[in-house]
Amino acid sequence: MEFANRLKNVETSAIRELFKLLGKPGIISFAGGFPDPTLFDAEGIALASQAVLNNNPGPVLQYGATEGYPLLREALVGFMANKGCVVQADGLITTTGSQQALDLIGKTMISPGDNVIVEAPTFLATIQCYRLYGANVIGCPIDAHGIQVDRLEQLMREHRPKLVYLVPNFGNPSGATLSLERRLRVLELAAQMEILVVEDDPYGELYFDQPPPASLLALSPQVQGSADNLAYCGSFSKILSPGLRVGWLIAPKDLLANATMCKQFSDAHTSNLTQAICAHYLGLNRMTATLDVVRKTYAQRAAVMAQALVDDLGQAIAFDAPQGGMFFWARLTGHDGNSADVATFAKNAIEQGVAFVPGAPFFAHDPDPSSLRLSFATANEARIREGVARLAKALA
Amino acid sequence: MEFANRLKNVETSAIRELFKLLGKPGIISFAGGFPDPTLFDAEGIALASQAVLNNNPGPVLQYGATEGYPLLREALVGFMANKGCVVQADGLITTTGSQQALDLIGKTMISPGDNVIVEAPTFLATIQCYRLYGANVIGCPIDAHGIQVDRLEQLMREHRPKLVYLVPNFGNPSGATLSLERRLRVLELAAQMEILVVEDDPYGELYFDQPPPASLLALSPQVQGSADNLAYCGSFSKILSPGLRVGWLIAPKDLLANATMCKQFSDAHTSNLTQAICAHYLGLNRMTATLDVVRKTYAQRAAVMAQALVDDLGQAIAFDAPQGGMFFWARLTGHDGNSADVATFAKNAIEQGVAFVPGAPFFAHDPDPSSLRLSFATANEARIREGVARLAKALA
Repeated sequence: MEFANRLKNVETSAIRELFKLLGKPGIISFAGGFPDPTLFDAEGIALASQAVLNNNPGPVLQYGATEGYPLLREALVGFMANKGCVVQADGLITTTGSQQALDLIGKTMISPGDNVIVEAPTFLATIQCYRLYGANVIGCPIDAHGIQVDRLEQLMREHRPKLVYLVPNFGNPSGATLSLERRLRVLELAAQMEILVVEDDPYGELYFDQPPPASLLALSPQVQGSADNLAYCGSFSKILSPGLRVGWLIAPKDLLANATMCKQFSDAHTSNLTQAICAHYLGLNRMTATLDVVRKTYAQRAAVMAQALVDDLGQAIAFDAPQGGMFFWARLTGHDGNSADVATFAKNAIEQGVAFVPGAPFFAHDPDPSSLRLSFATANEARIREGVARLAKALA
Repeated sequence: MEFANRLKNVETSAIRELFKLLGKPGIISFAGGFPDPTLFDAEGIALASQAVLNNNPGPVLQYGATEGYPLLREALVGFMANKGCVVQADGLITTTGSQQALDLIGKTMISPGDNVIVEAPTFLATIQCYRLYGANVIGCPIDAHGIQVDRLEQLMREHRPKLVYLVPNFGNPSGATLSLERRLRVLELAAQMEILVVEDDPYGELYFDQPPPASLLALSPQVQGSADNLAYCGSFSKILSPGLRVGWLIAPKDLLANATMCKQFSDAHTSNLTQAICAHYLGLNRMTATLDVVRKTYAQRAAVMAQALVDDLGQAIAFDAPQGGMFFWARLTGHDGNSADVATFAKNAIEQGVAFVPGAPFFAHDPDPSSLRLSFATANEARIREGVARLAKALA
């Protein structure tokens, strides 16, 4: 069978290897980007589901609008207003997880050969998603304060990309958060060059002590012309449940109309039932309490992991402690006289009963072979300590 | 903003016009392809939802496998076995409605410029979906027994399409059902020419008196080599609820693997909750009773619509009465001395308070301007009689 040419742009082996790492039983996993399922408000979701299915279930079980379930679009107006973003119900569409928002942007915007700029490193599934649409994906260096805006400006001028993709809050895999100053500069660049910036914000609510700076979307009214070149992707996956598969896309009118048309032929619409559950859940006023627990738990786990890494691996590993999200981005230094070869380290770690994700696949090109991603979200504190101890054994 | 070139392949105005027809309040709609929501087994779905969310909800609310929720894949093995199809759990993936199965086939198979053969007329969203991937869509004539296989063979030899898309059971919009003899011939052609046939089967369970002939998938073991060139798309939308958005794709191993990879970057996976509800529902053994009611209701409505059309519109309209599904495919004859201009008829019908869909958009090219589609599924018998009376007024 001869497949579409677009498949030739995607290297799947690296991803498949990652997934194999996750399957071994009994392993302590720092690998997945999975929330801790014990923190899900299953009771609240069950209440919402019952309410939705017991009270006039017809519209929930029937076909719905491609743009989204009306009650959820309305509820998201309020949710975004609480985050300082002024958006109307018809200024957003709901999506089957924010992965679909990324996909619809790609389908709507990217022709084969178009350039796309991403952070180096960035979310793996975005690189692959946009390569499937034929994008030439270019990585821009980052540091602890997010993407380096001077380098970004150079790359934007040189490559005239179709879009720039950023995870400004607690990035995956970097854990980095874009500074306020840089956020404003990104908006200026978008407005000046009329280049679309895609703000992917799955982790913004998962801060430890204080919220991250205002989102690009919230800041956009301050920078003339930037709102016309900005798309925002939101998600319930990290704050309520990824299994529901509900996200949303906020974008300029013409982009949103074309993305809606593409969605019509991608999956017609997102499940009305899961959308209605999310809408009803927001009305239950349980989200704040749920997020309080999630934030405290993840903050504590991040502190435990940081301390364990320092105690057990010492100078062999370098990392910036994140202020939120789910990930440590680390680098083997080789300072302990060991190899900084992460591929071998990962193999030895599996043998010791702990899994993590090597960092190389998160780079569109020129990977840092000494880098790795450790998630502190899924395992509890005791398991984190034990897992880091196993990492130390794997490195010895 | 400059959008992707693929958007230039899709003419959206026809679709948007259709949707406008549906919005007018108080109208009797023969337009939508919507099941009657009063026939949904809302009680059974609510029971399934409660069971799933009250008993170990963690895996349902967590991220899941792109291939599908394991319990649903297993349940679908049994569901398909009851339809005479031997498939293993790893021989299918679940999809966000069968629309996504169609989309994943397009993403996996179609390069810009590839030919695709469809029935003339066929499902509108398939034409548009495949054009978005750059397909040149070619229509093949049909009659009351489905696609004309001699013409199909000619077109396959002439155009070497990447795939042939068929709705063999109670087609949308045609209502036609492919004969057993022609099914076997289609499988022979697929095997001989090694060209993929996509069998889309949303309506197969909606028969009035007796089941349609065995599906291409069920017949494929009889025709050597055909199974390697056959994909099957199934859906819960017409038998349980479209709002859940759960379908499935059965395909040869390499196609399925690539479609799974594409799905990973399209929406990661389909909602675990709605998949788990479908799996649990199948275990409740309520489907047979639900389908019995649906079949009897739709059969009666089809009979009422047929009689009303004969009584009220007489020789002005021609149609073949379908043996299942949701649609009458009809043609204005002009025999009553009126114009056979369906566009004007549709406009007058809206003024009289009844909506239907003109047939032209269902053709990839060379539309029949006298054709129209009437759905008998959504409105009850009294409304069908009243709606047809309004049609007669609109024609007068």
